[in-house]
Amino acid sequence: MNRSLVLLLVSLLLPPAPAAAEAPPISEATESCLMCHEYLHPGIVSGWRSSQHAQVTPAKAMAVEGLGRKVSSEEVPEELTQVVVGCAECHTLRPSEHADTFDHNGEQVHIVVSPKDCSVCHAVEAAQYSQNIMAHAHGNLENNAVYQDLQHHVLGTPTRVDGELSFAPPSADTKALGCLYCHGTRLHVAGVETRDTDLGEMEFPVIDGWPNHGVGRINLDGSLGSCSPCHARHAFSIETARKPYTCKQCHIGPDVPVYKVYSASKHGNVFHSKQHEWDFNAVPWEIGGDFTAPTCAVCHVSLLVDPDGELVAQRTHQMNNRITRRIFGLVYSHAHPKDPDTTKIRNKDGLPLPTAFDGTPAADFLIGPEEQAKRRTEMETICLNCHGTSWVRGHFARYDKSHETTNAATLEGTRLLQEIWSRGYAQGPEAGGSPFDEAIERRWADIWLLYANSIRFASAMAGGGDYAVFADGYYSHSKRLAELQEWLAEREATGEAPEK
Amino acid sequence: MNRSLVLLLVSLLLPPAPAAAEAPPISEATESCLMCHEYLHPGIVSGWRSSQHAQVTPAKAMAVEGLGRKVSSEEVPEELTQVVVGCAECHTLRPSEHADTFDHNGEQVHIVVSPKDCSVCHAVEAAQYSQNIMAHAHGNLENNAVYQDLQHHVLGTPTRVDGELSFAPPSADTKALGCLYCHGTRLHVAGVETRDTDLGEMEFPVIDGWPNHGVGRINLDGSLGSCSPCHARHAFSIETARKPYTCKQCHIGPDVPVYKVYSASKHGNVFHSKQHEWDFNAVPWEIGGDFTAPTCAVCHVSLLVDPDGELVAQRTHQMNNRITRRIFGLVYSHAHPKDPDTTKIRNKDGLPLPTAFDGTPAADFLIGPEEQAKRRTEMETICLNCHGTSWVRGHFARYDKSHETTNAATLEGTRLLQEIWSRGYAQGPEAGGSPFDEAIERRWADIWLLYANSIRFASAMAGGGDYAVFADGYYSHSKRLAELQEWLAEREATGEAPEK
Amino acid sequence: MNRSLVLLLVSLLLPPAPAAAEAPPISEATESCLMCHEYLHPGIVSGWRSSQHAQVTPAKAMAVEGLGRKVSSEEVPEELTQVVVGCAECHTLRPSEHADTFDHNGEQVHIVVSPKDCSVCHAVEAAQYSQNIMAHAHGNLENNAVYQDLQHHVLGTPTRVDGELSFAPPSADTKALGCLYCHGTRLHVAGVETRDTDLGEMEFPVIDGWPNHGVGRINLDGSLGSCSPCHARHAFSIETARKPYTCKQCHIGPDVPVYKVYSASKHGNVFHSKQHEWDFNAVPWEIGGDFTAPTCAVCHVSLLVDPDGELVAQRTHQMNNRITRRIFGLVYSHAHPKDPDTTKIRNKDGLPLPTAFDGTPAADFLIGPEEQAKRRTEMETICLNCHGTSWVRGHFARYDKSHETTNAATLEGTRLLQEIWSRGYAQGPEAGGSPFDEAIERRWADIWLLYANSIRFASAMAGGGDYAVFADGYYSHSKRLAELQEWLAEREATGEAPEK
Repeated sequence: MNRSLVLLLVSLLLPPAPAAAEAPPISEATESCLMCHEYLHPGIVSGWRSSQHAQVTPAKAMAVEGLGRKVSSEEVPEELTQVVVGCAECHTLRPSEHADTFDHNGEQVHIVVSPKDCSVCHAVEAAQYSQNIMAHAHGNLENNAVYQDLQHHVLGTPTRVDGELSFAPPSADTKALGCLYCHGTRLHVAGVETRDTDLGEMEFPVIDGWPNHGVGRINLDGSLGSCSPCHARHAFSIETARKPYTCKQCHIGPDVPVYKVYSASKHGNVFHSKQHEWDFNAVPWEIGGDFTAPTCAVCHVSLLVDPDGELVAQRTHQMNNRITRRIFGLVYSHAHPKDPDTTKIRNKDGLPLPTAFDGTPAADFLIGPEEQAKRRTEMETICLNCHGTSWVRGHFARYDKSHETTNAATLEGTRLLQEIWSRGYAQGPEAGGSPFDEAIERRWADIWLLYANSIRFASAMAGGGDYAVFADGYYSHSKRLAELQEWLAEREATGEAPEK
Repeated sequence: MNRSLVLLLVSLLLPPAPAAAEAPPISEATESCLMCHEYLHPGIVSGWRSSQHAQVTPAKAMAVEGLGRKVSSEEVPEELTQVVVGCAECHTLRPSEHADTFDHNGEQVHIVVSPKDCSVCHAVEAAQYSQNIMAHAHGNLENNAVYQDLQHHVLGTPTRVDGELSFAPPSADTKALGCLYCHGTRLHVAGVETRDTDLGEMEFPVIDGWPNHGVGRINLDGSLGSCSPCHARHAFSIETARKPYTCKQCHIGPDVPVYKVYSASKHGNVFHSKQHEWDFNAVPWEIGGDFTAPTCAVCHVSLLVDPDGELVAQRTHQMNNRITRRIFGLVYSHAHPKDPDTTKIRNKDGLPLPTAFDGTPAADFLIGPEEQAKRRTEMETICLNCHGTSWVRGHFARYDKSHETTNAATLEGTRLLQEIWSRGYAQGPEAGGSPFDEAIERRWADIWLLYANSIRFASAMAGGGDYAVFADGYYSHSKRLAELQEWLAEREATGEAPEK
Repeated sequence: MNRSLVLLLVSLLLPPAPAAAEAPPISEATESCLMCHEYLHPGIVSGWRSSQHAQVTPAKAMAVEGLGRKVSSEEVPEELTQVVVGCAECHTLRPSEHADTFDHNGEQVHIVVSPKDCSVCHAVEAAQYSQNIMAHAHGNLENNAVYQDLQHHVLGTPTRVDGELSFAPPSADTKALGCLYCHGTRLHVAGVETRDTDLGEMEFPVIDGWPNHGVGRINLDGSLGSCSPCHARHAFSIETARKPYTCKQCHIGPDVPVYKVYSASKHGNVFHSKQHEWDFNAVPWEIGGDFTAPTCAVCHVSLLVDPDGELVAQRTHQMNNRITRRIFGLVYSHAHPKDPDTTKIRNKDGLPLPTAFDGTPAADFLIGPEEQAKRRTEMETICLNCHGTSWVRGHFARYDKSHETTNAATLEGTRLLQEIWSRGYAQGPEAGGSPFDEAIERRWADIWLLYANSIRFASAMAGGGDYAVFADGYYSHSKRLAELQEWLAEREATGEAPEK
């Protein structure tokens, strides 16, 4: 009989030890979890013990007044307020709503904690995040026929039959490793399995799509998203969430080279060389005092104050309140979508895309000039804490220009591809083909899926230079265009007809 | 009436408070700046407050004797010596020489502080930097017809007319985001604008090319360069300047993958894993005591001493005193130019390039063997502090070899392109074409603009392995050559004539 | 007469000063080395002074009991036990066995210290490392005809003769900068040279292949490998070895993008944001207490305990004991080789490769299902400290799937290339050609040498997303396949015959 079993049995026979005067109170249920899991998964428990959750009761957290308050819910169920937020407090919450709830030593435990669980204490953040386009990242990809076509030809397993290359649909595992790693999987309880444990045979749910910490994960209570990508694991460290390494997990490139550009920017330079002097845990976060250059969180998420404690920017988990345009993932950059569910969008050709093939925006579905101006002003308010007005205006003028030039160049590339299609050198949608399955089409995709974005991000974060030019920037953008041109000219010269 | 306005008015009515005995004396003019700007731009002011400039008067700095002295000017105007270096000390210096000087609450303020302003206290560094090829980076690019042709076809906006791809000249904003982000813009006062401020309507200069912190910026007093790329913003942190993240801003690749190679080298490994134990602020900087592996600054810039305090290397802001060859940006690597203004160079064909198309160096304009040997010896002196003689010799033998092999391979690529041109498959300069506008020409450019450099940097920093082979190194170098070969052979096989 | 000479002479005349009570005892021979070398190479000496070697005698180290013991040899020669491990202790060890041993001020000194020298105290680690495939990295590359063919066409200097591109064999310097930078050079004493030194003329061995710290270096005592790549220079810092920057030196990509994937994974995120709170020097290394997310060393090398001090994983320098498959460098991933010397492997076609061209494994030479299961279980034991069972199982199911899909796609690419060869559009091995010298063959090589690996590493380290898709992942993998398809179809369409 091993130690964890002994300890569990002992724990069942004895009442929990009275907490020391200063020790934060842990619920009986959580103590019972810890009895085994401290030995089974010490890394999880030590992470949790280092967290604020393990040290502060909701009652104490709710007693904080002003900007330092971290619990945003106005009310928290009484039974949760007097103990710290431990294993049981989250993993046994709302048991009837989680499809993975199972009986585990007498408790109704679910494996996957969802934003809706977190919202019990953090209601404002959960509500904001539901308006974040990231919360909808799964459906926005999986329920859009155009993206599905791209995903099919990128992730699918190729087979060559009769001289033609075709792609078998990607498996769930491949999708989970690929696009859904960031977009989030759809979790599903596939059944129950019995495992031999130190406590004998036990039953556990088998969850398809697990593990995953994609931002748009569809949870077993039907809620959207996951808090784990940023508030990692059981430490829920604000420090980690505020450092750019967190965003890097999904925003590394080349389709979305945010971290790379940031790291090469002046902001990144100051962060990397001075972060050891900063306070990444202060709430609210003081400009100049706690940090001297922005991380991703500063501009897009965090609650900021000036050295007098005056509010500069409210915390937001919607994250796009200061973002005017969507600059990656689509053929042309465009005003940000109004609704985080982008499957509703229809362009003038009826496709679920925010622009037409010729760049015309699906304006009804995108924020208008007034909202764009409001968002721009909100962002500038932050910039102005460290930059003068002429600096900020000059910066955004270049940013706007980068969209104009990249969209114009991409349009030329699209026209080249359309001519290639119209001459029959490749099979476009009008001829019943996919726009993503032939090599020349993939070179066209590079233009907007990789290079145009790199330029725009370099512009957005004042991290130009290499990322705007040689590192997947204008240098590659114009090269791919020249390649499309060469490809078409060569076929015209040889009078060659396409092979299929 | 908002608080900053109240405070400003109060400040105009009252004399400045007498400084506490120990508090560093701040000039009246700077106190007046701070009155508003501490609230308007708290990030700027807190950066400055953390700086040496805010804590030490020039008089005190000039009293330091020996290698620890940071003010290199022999004399500093008396009126600047007894107060710390604050807003007004820099932004109202030499007002008649700055085109952006404007009347601001009774002070003659200029927005852009230049190296010539900094030279009031740091004369030696400013003089050295003027000999740094980086100070001339704007003109070296903008006044060289060959580079302009490349820039035009990289940054220009493509349009396809009558089946031909042509490029409209890039806008000033695109250039500022692209090449000039690092090379530096030319600043120009375009006019004056009136802004509504907390103090009512005020006039400010409108500066074309702003913001920019490129190393070769042309300033509004006609001076060249900027100190900000390395001595960032208002903290002027030596620590930041000495860390490789600073150099990374412009030297990240793939055209100049210095930071990437350094990070993967043994030097980078030790830096990244041990930097938290180093002293990045000590002047002079002690080998072994303050740091245990070089950063970029150690080999190229900083004032170094051994553990006995004996001088190992003098500080230099010329930066190329220990560099024998120029290893990127040109078709072939070559001995370093004599003059930092490279527009004067003419190769044997009369082009403003340091080598001819066949690799022949424009020897009259490049440093000779004696100067190369002197620079090599200076660099080796630093290496030998941590490496034995045979290590150092072996290292540089490989370095020299890497130039030989990359130049030889590039020459084969150039010959292939010349054959392509001579057969009329593409339009080279002799046929009136640009060498940079067709796809096959851009593949040739990759050979020397990206891959040859990567190999040489890997060799220079003993960071070989992936960066010499698979990461844009020999693997890609030889692949592009094979592609040129295939392209030519294919056209010869089909008897195909070019499209234009 | 310079100072180091004076000091040396003084040191020869006087007995060494008696060590202070607490100062660790340094041998007379090492004191004599330090007399000059502290001035000649202060960086080396200060690194050593910071090391455990300079502070602890073997006798004291051997007195440690339990898991904290770092000296693994059961016996250490008596004369070494009472002094710290200084210059002379390593550089004069086993003099008759080192080809570079030379008379240096009366001592028999060798320049290159080998793992066999280190094994005097660290016998277990040296023995384990000899079973590490890395120890054999030189011969595995240099004695394999297929790899030599690849190396020849990657590193060789290209020349074009009669319209054909051929490659001169790469020089030793180029190989040392390229493949052998990581794989290790073969060291060889080429002769003796006389140098002018502060002490007059002295003779030193000239060592071909030096410097090098490749993992499979062939040393001058015939031993294999080097401890320096991970235990850098003279500080031998455990902290450095445990941080991922060390592994990055050779595992950066794109052929083996381990560091990149790790950095973008959740593990990397936690490491980068929290490492400042970790203890990288503790032995044994406590999960949860000393660190909260794995670095490379955690899963592959280090001695791990749980918070109760119970053993979780034994230290191993074989490093592949928990690795089931070899996932890079070969056309198909496959079960790990049984023997670290892979030159013995023969596939069904008689080639020294672990799989045939059609993917069939050379099963006799690879570990079987039982050993794979054992290794998987060992790895899972570590994972389970921070993850639940269903998490770990789901992770490895995806990992296995990634091998299946990448191998299948690669096989389609190989079939395409074989068809290209069989039609005579390129010259494959059956026609007497190299599989690595033509452009189309190099595009095929990208499929397995770069892109398939990236996908597998993304899967292995749960760092999917960009590295599985856009950053050299499925996006590029499927694009290259489409390019092979296009290339073949184009030649079929034009009826074009190959050029040679």
